[in-house]
Amino acid sequence: MEQQLFVTMALQGWNTHVARAEKYFDALSDTDFQKTIAPGKNRIIYLYGHLTSYHDLLIETLGIGEALYPELTPAFLRTPDGPGVDAYTVGELKQYWVDVHSRLSQLFAALPAEDWFKRHNAMTDEDFAKDPTRNRLSVLLSRTNHIAYHFGQLVLV
Amino acid sequence: MEQQLFVTMALQGWNTHVARAEKYFDALSDTDFQKTIAPGKNRIIYLYGHLTSYHDLLIETLGIGEALYPELTPAFLRTPDGPGVDAYTVGELKQYWVDVHSRLSQLFAALPAEDWFKRHNAMTDEDFAKDPTRNRLSVLLSRTNHIAYHFGQLVLV
Repeated sequence: MEQQLFVTMALQGWNTHVARAEKYFDALSDTDFQKTIAPGKNRIIYLYGHLTSYHDLLIETLGIGEALYPELTPAFLRTPDGPGVDAYTVGELKQYWVDVHSRLSQLFAALPAEDWFKRHNAMTDEDFAKDPTRNRLSVLLSRTNHIAYHFGQLVLV
Repeated sequence: MEQQLFVTMALQGWNTHVARAEKYFDALSDTDFQKTIAPGKNRIIYLYGHLTSYHDLLIETLGIGEALYPELTPAFLRTPDGPGVDAYTVGELKQYWVDVHSRLSQLFAALPAEDWFKRHNAMTDEDFAKDPTRNRLSVLLSRTNHIAYHFGQLVLV
């Protein structure tokens, strides 16, 4: 019961931040996506793919499935904004965003509360025994903060 | 035991974000504090006082004590950056930052895990009965996201 309460709290935070970002991106024109968040910094289109790719990989970090679009990581996750991003249209990225977040919603809904408190895949059993706070739910809290971090940049545009 | 685990997770997130912001602010010169995060947007000095004031009020929102510097709210919380900010020196704000976060650390350390799951002061008993996720800990998670939001802006400078 208590586990369920924590999971609900963490998922509410996650859902709120994803929805807020989605609403922001959905209101932009194709031209807007080419704007940078500050002079010489990332373009909005990069951050769109960046959040999509990072959330896609979350499926594997949590150990609850396979990433849908691992091919996004070189352009959107392993490197800053650059020419690799221009291989993708806004329409394509929009589809990937929807696919990734729909898939996450399904997987999260299917995960029993107690499983959120098991270790994630970036963690050994030995380390987890020493520090049980490093569970799946802590990764979700961390990724929620990561959305807020970039959303703070997006609102500057 | 489970309550304690979740409180520890939330406090780790909070402490990490406060420490990261503090390290950032402590590395700046007085001149740096006058820089804006983007053309025409808030200055760093505003965000310094903004986070301090908001975290100070957290003491009252959680219902665990009284704010130390409620006089900061008109210039740093209720309005965007403006002339009211210039009434404060960086040195003063640094002292307020230290005082507020030291006080929060003391109060958090003294709060039993179960009390984090009670309602906060911005909530009626009736509403809390309907939605127990709106507890003190959810406020802490929200404030942690708020630091991340502004930290994403600060790193652009």
